[in-house]
Amino acid sequence: MADTLDTSPAQLANAIRALAMDAVQQANSGHPGAPMGMADIAVALWKRHLKHNPSDPQWVDRDRFVLSNGHGSMLIYALLHLTGYDLPIEELKAFRQMHSKTPGHPEVGVTPGVETTTGPLGQGISNAVGMALAEKLLAAEFNREGHSVVDHRTYAFLGDGCLMEGISHEACALAGAWKLNKLIALYDDNGISIDGQVAPWFIDDTPARFKAYGWNVIGPVDGHDVDAVDAAIAQAKTSADKPTLIVCKTSIGKGSPNRANTAKAHGEALGAEEIALTRAAIGWPHAPFEIPADIAAAWDCRTAGAAAQSDWEDRYSLYVRDFPALAVDFERRMAGDLPDNFAEIAVAAVAAAHEKAETVASRKASQIALEHFTAALPELLGGSADLTGSNLTNTKSTPALRFGADGSVVVNEAGQIGRHVNYGVREFGMAAVMNGVALHGGFIPYGGTFLTFSDYSRNAIRMAALMKLRVVHVFTHDSIGLGEDGPTHQSVEHAASLRLIPGLDVWRPADTAETAVAWTMALANKHRPSALLLSRQNLPYAPKTDADVITKGAYILAEPAEVGLKKKPVAVLLATGSEVQLALMAQAELAKLKIPVRVVSMPSNTVFDRQDPKYQKEVLPAKLPRIAIEAGVTSGWWKYGCAAVIGLDTYGESAPAGVLFKHFGFTTDNVVATVRTVLGR
Amino acid sequence: MADTLDTSPAQLANAIRALAMDAVQQANSGHPGAPMGMADIAVALWKRHLKHNPSDPQWVDRDRFVLSNGHGSMLIYALLHLTGYDLPIEELKAFRQMHSKTPGHPEVGVTPGVETTTGPLGQGISNAVGMALAEKLLAAEFNREGHSVVDHRTYAFLGDGCLMEGISHEACALAGAWKLNKLIALYDDNGISIDGQVAPWFIDDTPARFKAYGWNVIGPVDGHDVDAVDAAIAQAKTSADKPTLIVCKTSIGKGSPNRANTAKAHGEALGAEEIALTRAAIGWPHAPFEIPADIAAAWDCRTAGAAAQSDWEDRYSLYVRDFPALAVDFERRMAGDLPDNFAEIAVAAVAAAHEKAETVASRKASQIALEHFTAALPELLGGSADLTGSNLTNTKSTPALRFGADGSVVVNEAGQIGRHVNYGVREFGMAAVMNGVALHGGFIPYGGTFLTFSDYSRNAIRMAALMKLRVVHVFTHDSIGLGEDGPTHQSVEHAASLRLIPGLDVWRPADTAETAVAWTMALANKHRPSALLLSRQNLPYAPKTDADVITKGAYILAEPAEVGLKKKPVAVLLATGSEVQLALMAQAELAKLKIPVRVVSMPSNTVFDRQDPKYQKEVLPAKLPRIAIEAGVTSGWWKYGCAAVIGLDTYGESAPAGVLFKHFGFTTDNVVATVRTVLGR
Repeated sequence: MADTLDTSPAQLANAIRALAMDAVQQANSGHPGAPMGMADIAVALWKRHLKHNPSDPQWVDRDRFVLSNGHGSMLIYALLHLTGYDLPIEELKAFRQMHSKTPGHPEVGVTPGVETTTGPLGQGISNAVGMALAEKLLAAEFNREGHSVVDHRTYAFLGDGCLMEGISHEACALAGAWKLNKLIALYDDNGISIDGQVAPWFIDDTPARFKAYGWNVIGPVDGHDVDAVDAAIAQAKTSADKPTLIVCKTSIGKGSPNRANTAKAHGEALGAEEIALTRAAIGWPHAPFEIPADIAAAWDCRTAGAAAQSDWEDRYSLYVRDFPALAVDFERRMAGDLPDNFAEIAVAAVAAAHEKAETVASRKASQIALEHFTAALPELLGGSADLTGSNLTNTKSTPALRFGADGSVVVNEAGQIGRHVNYGVREFGMAAVMNGVALHGGFIPYGGTFLTFSDYSRNAIRMAALMKLRVVHVFTHDSIGLGEDGPTHQSVEHAASLRLIPGLDVWRPADTAETAVAWTMALANKHRPSALLLSRQNLPYAPKTDADVITKGAYILAEPAEVGLKKKPVAVLLATGSEVQLALMAQAELAKLKIPVRVVSMPSNTVFDRQDPKYQKEVLPAKLPRIAIEAGVTSGWWKYGCAAVIGLDTYGESAPAGVLFKHFGFTTDNVVATVRTVLGR
Repeated sequence: MADTLDTSPAQLANAIRALAMDAVQQANSGHPGAPMGMADIAVALWKRHLKHNPSDPQWVDRDRFVLSNGHGSMLIYALLHLTGYDLPIEELKAFRQMHSKTPGHPEVGVTPGVETTTGPLGQGISNAVGMALAEKLLAAEFNREGHSVVDHRTYAFLGDGCLMEGISHEACALAGAWKLNKLIALYDDNGISIDGQVAPWFIDDTPARFKAYGWNVIGPVDGHDVDAVDAAIAQAKTSADKPTLIVCKTSIGKGSPNRANTAKAHGEALGAEEIALTRAAIGWPHAPFEIPADIAAAWDCRTAGAAAQSDWEDRYSLYVRDFPALAVDFERRMAGDLPDNFAEIAVAAVAAAHEKAETVASRKASQIALEHFTAALPELLGGSADLTGSNLTNTKSTPALRFGADGSVVVNEAGQIGRHVNYGVREFGMAAVMNGVALHGGFIPYGGTFLTFSDYSRNAIRMAALMKLRVVHVFTHDSIGLGEDGPTHQSVEHAASLRLIPGLDVWRPADTAETAVAWTMALANKHRPSALLLSRQNLPYAPKTDADVITKGAYILAEPAEVGLKKKPVAVLLATGSEVQLALMAQAELAKLKIPVRVVSMPSNTVFDRQDPKYQKEVLPAKLPRIAIEAGVTSGWWKYGCAAVIGLDTYGESAPAGVLFKHFGFTTDNVVATVRTVLGR
């Protein structure tokens, strides 16, 4: 131990390096290269700029920090530990071990101070774009002259991998178009990816690329010069109308005599010998996981953080005094609570659907429901990946979001900011931006595209489910019912495939009422994403005796009595979405043959699967054979003990929808014949 | 009818406009805007530059043409019809109708002259990058001094939508890094997407962006000036080391007095009235679908095409004379035929696996099999999305592909060109580029990433299946067995989800022998893509009595006799991949309890599902209860009539693999207990 301790920026950075290499070594698993390479950048940001209070990681006006290169998780764990978050050294010693607070990649909800779960590359920076968007919109909506209660920045660290991913193009182009001046991304330009020196496969002129998106680009700066990075951040903070990329030239694994600047530094422990050499090289004689008191004190941000929050709270109390109603709404929205009258709004939306009993496409039914919800919930932030008129995600209450040349949010004549986002043809970017918006808080984002293109955004939907975020995906044109656009656009496997994502609720409603209920449930589920699969084509309203049961995901829609048979059912027709009408028609035909069947509508099997077994057995009694009908792959239906499944296990064709349904066997005759075969009568 | 016909470029373009608007009108469905807007560009390319022979759409040295904005399908149908392909006017009249050759989006295999199926935006240009890569590599491999038998270009049309999609970033960055100078993309810069004037959501400086990728950028040129576009193409053809983007300023729906330059022109029929106005405006008095003889003659490319092909055939005959062995191999590879000794190679690979009976990870088993196949099949073109050392897709026979500063393919000291592609962190781009390589012919592409990131590439995998392309996806780290990287990287739903894609074979092999068979089948399936799901962790070799049955997708691996029980089985343990060893251990434990069970290994349920029902019943007799075991979601297993499924319907955790398997119930004890519960003993 040295007698006098050096608390220079270089030594603060070395504390990160030591923790990173020691934790990875202890786990014998992990990625030391990025934390060691970005340690100096981290000192510049976290010691000199980041506005945060380690004692209150949920402070609403904190700056957001995203580690988009999530494999470098030890960087953020070291920072959180050192600056004073509730992340004791024991947790760092348990890096990557079961139920520690230091999992392999940062996970929101697991570790205090982690703002988003990262690892799948490119999505972190896209989440950051969403956070910065939310901040900008909230500021426009809630700040008042002399009262900047929403005034924070979003910082993201990212590496070569994030920049190679296509989603970085989508999200960063949007950030430029949206003039997100309070988004500052710091690029760890180390020229190395897992396969080695990137030159043969990554020749992008990244600064030129980002300038082409309308970004402010600073650098390259020396990413190991804390003052240079500090100055770059200071400059970035002055941008009024552009997001900023700071290009930081770094050495991956900086400090390691033999591993720095090599791909080997990326994803494996340095080994005891190299760690010893590194300790000597960087002048860090301390034992593993030992942070000398002076260094610890120099890193501690609790006092400064508390002061910053206190200052904000003083200002916020003046806002509460001057704008009490706004403050109530702001706090409600940041807490993610729905308005007190949400139940009434929902009931009205559902009741209107029942009352009008309209025959419309379920995408139109969605828009009708959204008219109710968007009028009452200012936190709903809609959007579409360039299919607004097809997805019908816009409503009278959601003007298109636009930004002025000066970077400001355009306010319309009625004093409203835009609440419908034209995401452009960027499905994955949209989904990841929505995740960022939800993580930031203040909004419930929803966005639309065709169901087939859920493929493009699939991993961001998964991330929403993993993070338990309330985002709503509006997937229209949900089957061969799309018609002439053909097999490239016709969903066949997508409903089944989305139902496999743990934690995602999937709805495929059959009519206006089911659609209104689906929206209600999606909005009420604070910790769960939902996907609404909606038809292009018109669907008739199906009369219901008990509308409340729709919320259970599946319910008895029509017993034999509905078609004039005074018998108990001998089979169940189980259908979703556009095929429910087919089940009802088949039920009527079967009634003519004196075969009594029950029709069960199952708008959401994921919701139904969570009901108590008693209810499940009431709807699907063990003794009744079930025949499922859905215009998609059959695989997922067998778990309901079906005797037969009428589905589609091949691709569709290009033809009018009616022709296709007939061609692929979605006809009353085929359903009737299938039931008779199953029953042997 | 006019007496003297004008066969100017403008009128040739108007023939396209008329066919496009008339066909869309007849179908009352489709996209007239792009064909009408790009008609003049099409004249410049198809009349003055494109090397093709309408009478032989399969001529190997033809230029490839890709309509990346596939919704503009009437553009290519009009061009194919007008230039003389086997696409009679009756087919254009049946646009978007069942089983016509003119589906809603262009489909390869349906329409002669269509090179790839497009519609999902961004993938066409990415396919084109793959085609241009294949051409460049084949030229480097087969051309000899004075013998340029491989010498063609790849042209792509693309619009704003393609450029907004993230995949365009991935694929175009690769095209720049690979110096694909014979790739020429023509950008329909009309400033309109479905949601309207793109300015609020698409502000990219696209020329600057493409320059940043290392492209040659020409323009903007007037996209309605045939001579200007012609000159730009001529200039692009001189590029020695860069792909070229030609930016063409156009008006969507050009020619329509009221719809041009509006989003309304994009995706709906003009209507009879506007069509009449358009006819008048462009000077096209002819009836719908009527092409005057002089215009038809001016468009006909059959004579010129036949001459071009004949010239090439003359040159090729000299090549055959001078390099007969090379010519035989070239023809075999372009035909997509495997070497005559493929069966022997495959038998040797599988036999070696049995003989060595190694305990290795199945990703390593894949590399071992690949050593056999890559040594014998020069057409294998491997790669990885920046995880080469993890995916183990490289072999001794596949040096890394590199390009010289002059744009040439680097040839190593042994005279070999590279055959392993560092795709960078670009999963979706990789998958779509592989599709393009397969479409071009001459190579069988395979590429690796982690299984979870199949989410990123999912729609390109689907497109491979829809197009019936032989591409092989190597997806490693296939479950919680990945360990410490945690839930962001642990596949849970991916195996089940990939199995839902119609036409895709999914393999999850349990050991070296099954892995070698999986590779054999993947390579032998000329018209089907395959996904190989491979473990990070070691898996023991499972001794087999009959190895041939692996090819059937599922087989009886061990009867009770193998564990010393002379009884018939009373249950079946059905497992895949890493869980097969668990089934075998449970079988042994159950034998101690005198409970005889059969172990069925099911490396590929998609293959098993195609076996005749007799074999299926032999393996899974109706009277035996089945218990499935797979470290993933359970949904897909019920179709095999399982009494229980041991799986994982939640996300994983970050911890060592062994800890995780135990935590989630993948233990002998749990399997034994489950079997006993099912059997009630």
